[in-house]
Amino acid sequence: MPAEGIVGEVRVIPVRGLPELADGADLGRLLHEAIVRLGGFEHGDVLVVAQKAISKVEGRVVALADVKPSTRARELAGEEGDPRHLEWVLRESAEVVRSRPPLVIAQTRHGFVCASAGVDASNARGEGTLVLLPLDPDASADRLRARIHELSGATVGVIVSDSFGRAWRQGTTDVALGCAGIAPIRDLRGTSDAVGHTLVSTQIAVADELAGAAELVMGKAAGIPAAIVRGVDAVGEGSAVELVMPRDRDLFR
Amino acid sequence: MPAEGIVGEVRVIPVRGLPELADGADLGRLLHEAIVRLGGFEHGDVLVVAQKAISKVEGRVVALADVKPSTRARELAGEEGDPRHLEWVLRESAEVVRSRPPLVIAQTRHGFVCASAGVDASNARGEGTLVLLPLDPDASADRLRARIHELSGATVGVIVSDSFGRAWRQGTTDVALGCAGIAPIRDLRGTSDAVGHTLVSTQIAVADELAGAAELVMGKAAGIPAAIVRGVDAVGEGSAVELVMPRDRDLFR
Repeated sequence: MPAEGIVGEVRVIPVRGLPELADGADLGRLLHEAIVRLGGFEHGDVLVVAQKAISKVEGRVVALADVKPSTRARELAGEEGDPRHLEWVLRESAEVVRSRPPLVIAQTRHGFVCASAGVDASNARGEGTLVLLPLDPDASADRLRARIHELSGATVGVIVSDSFGRAWRQGTTDVALGCAGIAPIRDLRGTSDAVGHTLVSTQIAVADELAGAAELVMGKAAGIPAAIVRGVDAVGEGSAVELVMPRDRDLFR
Repeated sequence: MPAEGIVGEVRVIPVRGLPELADGADLGRLLHEAIVRLGGFEHGDVLVVAQKAISKVEGRVVALADVKPSTRARELAGEEGDPRHLEWVLRESAEVVRSRPPLVIAQTRHGFVCASAGVDASNARGEGTLVLLPLDPDASADRLRARIHELSGATVGVIVSDSFGRAWRQGTTDVALGCAGIAPIRDLRGTSDAVGHTLVSTQIAVADELAGAAELVMGKAAGIPAAIVRGVDAVGEGSAVELVMPRDRDLFR
């Protein structure tokens, strides 16, 4: 049974006990079963799932050995990098934004700007493999949401999260790559603050704050691929692509 | 009494019922009293306090009328901005990183890169006033931590938070400007992930994720200036300046 809470509090609940995820696994069922053990979903819950879990069940794991590095990949790898890794990064990139070999900041085809176009070696299945981002993280979130509704009857929000670095700040925070059933941005423009001023330029990236809050219980090293965030009113519609700064408003491209 | 929780869960608890804050107010006492009404602190709690609350009690509220705008401020204001506002932004800036009048992205003297060097009109005390960032947010966090310990005996972590925009992404998320009694970055370099790989480049900006989680219950419009985050092991020492990317590693300066 869910515990009684303090009025207005938010709870972030780790979802444990999932097996190692294989290509084609029914992630919706595995999450549903784990969440039944936690007492089930409540109305308004947001389920945050690590990108890597999604990518694994969607077959987005590739072998370093499967590519022949281009000249450009060799350049970007420099002395320290693996040119085959950089070749996969280039294949996943729409554009290289900055590079300092072997570090590459790239824009993915989805529009996200991040290190290595999201291509990651840690937590991959065995040495010599890489995990790529899902092809369409919003669609991944949608499918998971539908599967969970089918199995449990619950209508939840779903976020696909990943750890991104930031310009000017050290360390990563988790952000939303995909979402379903939630409004990723809370737009306060035109509303009044506590002393009656009109807030003219306030849009809060709620989906990114939800992803970051979930990271606090998931942890890269802990093998917890999902969390429930309970108590935030984020119900709505929208795509995580809304979180990408449009090019014509972007001062850093 | 605190409610019984799910193992490993994190709770984010809004701190309500504070009065409008005046210059010189004993914010530590006001927070202590509000938190007693919530059942008191628990070991390991992190108290996140909005920068604006700190700035108000530290007298960092200024009048637009108190400055004569320079030529540079007039240029940065363009057609739409208030040159007096931009003059305050310049006074708070160590360097202008980008501008598109009247928008300015600047580095503050603390090292933070953010819109308007953190100078903000919303929620200021009356029309014609601006709120500046605290002079030393780490010191503000330290003082608050000491005052709370004095009044309650509790040893807590404290974060001073503010809403920052991000390069490439829409919407703000709350981040840490100051901290006391916590390690702002969790360094996983050299540790192993769930399948035994060594994580070579993983530093998590836990203080920023804590600030973002707190924002989920604070809300700009709701007049809740603080939140407790319970259940995250972030105890340690450190300065929020550790969250600033060193210039020699910064690809975006």
